[in-house]
Amino acid sequence: MAGYQALPLELLAEEFAKLPGIGLKSAQRLAYAVISRSDEEVERFANALLSAKRDIHFCPCCQNLTELDLCPICADSQRDHSLVCVVEGPKDVSALERTGEYQGLYHVLHGLISPIDGITPDKLRIRELLARLKGGEVQEVIMATNPTVEGDATAMYLAQLLEPLGIKVTRLAFGLPVGGTLEYADEVTLFRALENRTAMS
Amino acid sequence: MAGYQALPLELLAEEFAKLPGIGLKSAQRLAYAVISRSDEEVERFANALLSAKRDIHFCPCCQNLTELDLCPICADSQRDHSLVCVVEGPKDVSALERTGEYQGLYHVLHGLISPIDGITPDKLRIRELLARLKGGEVQEVIMATNPTVEGDATAMYLAQLLEPLGIKVTRLAFGLPVGGTLEYADEVTLFRALENRTAMS
Repeated sequence: MAGYQALPLELLAEEFAKLPGIGLKSAQRLAYAVISRSDEEVERFANALLSAKRDIHFCPCCQNLTELDLCPICADSQRDHSLVCVVEGPKDVSALERTGEYQGLYHVLHGLISPIDGITPDKLRIRELLARLKGGEVQEVIMATNPTVEGDATAMYLAQLLEPLGIKVTRLAFGLPVGGTLEYADEVTLFRALENRTAMS
Repeated sequence: MAGYQALPLELLAEEFAKLPGIGLKSAQRLAYAVISRSDEEVERFANALLSAKRDIHFCPCCQNLTELDLCPICADSQRDHSLVCVVEGPKDVSALERTGEYQGLYHVLHGLISPIDGITPDKLRIRELLARLKGGEVQEVIMATNPTVEGDATAMYLAQLLEPLGIKVTRLAFGLPVGGTLEYADEVTLFRALENRTAMS
């Protein structure tokens, strides 16, 4: 980095700049913001970093991130253990939980099949999903991967894989977003909305 | 935060969200990015935080941030110690150093006078500047605060304060930015460019 800056500040800015979406300018700004905070606050930040890395691991059942032996969703006997929603990452679990509507369990793949990026099916948590389904408790698997090339491909791949197990496999509905307008919808979304039209009761 | 998330991850995201310009969504994304890195990398990040906070203090001469007893600029005998450039913050020192043109010293105010925000002159490092000028070595003080209301007010205030000391006080030139066009220059910039027009040699 050109210009004069104290070395520890420069090193801290470099650490921030390694994070996704943070350029050198923002990283510098963040480094300055850190040193203007109190000792206790900076220590709390450093501890949060270390503890997140140290205490978080994968739930042995759904593969989501958790600090517990079994994540609270898998451990919840009130939820419907016959329903499993397959998602790309932990953020998707968070998004679906925010709807407050879904009462089943999840399975986190930690990625989507993308041969171009070297992500083949064996790099995802598919083995764990199959082992889980062998238990016989699961009746339906909902594919909730994104409506992208990789998301669709992964959903198709899994659907074919699960077919012989006699488990119902469904996919999230696609169509116009609520509050969206036809005018601004892209062609593919509009086509899907037409294709998946439902009867008005 | 709604949705399900492991607790240590949530705490880490909250720490990120306390930084300027980082919202809850970005903070979550950064927290995920951290735990996907290696133990060593996360430790290096945590140490960079702690060391920046612990090792950095104000240079007793120019008040810039440094980890040394005297900052490298003040300690450099090759630089012109009769010239002091007054700036708002450490970032401005960095910006001016990047030009590679300035050979004098700096004085960092750590803010600008802004009574609305409760920043009165006694909150800035003005006392330290006056003490420094009493040494008699400094011949010229360049006001390099931003061309904003606060920057101009601070420059004016300091100029009046330094007048009785018999030290030459100058201000950075304002005008069209190099590479800029008249069409897109704002009225104040254009007015200043007209006002400060120079003879073509």
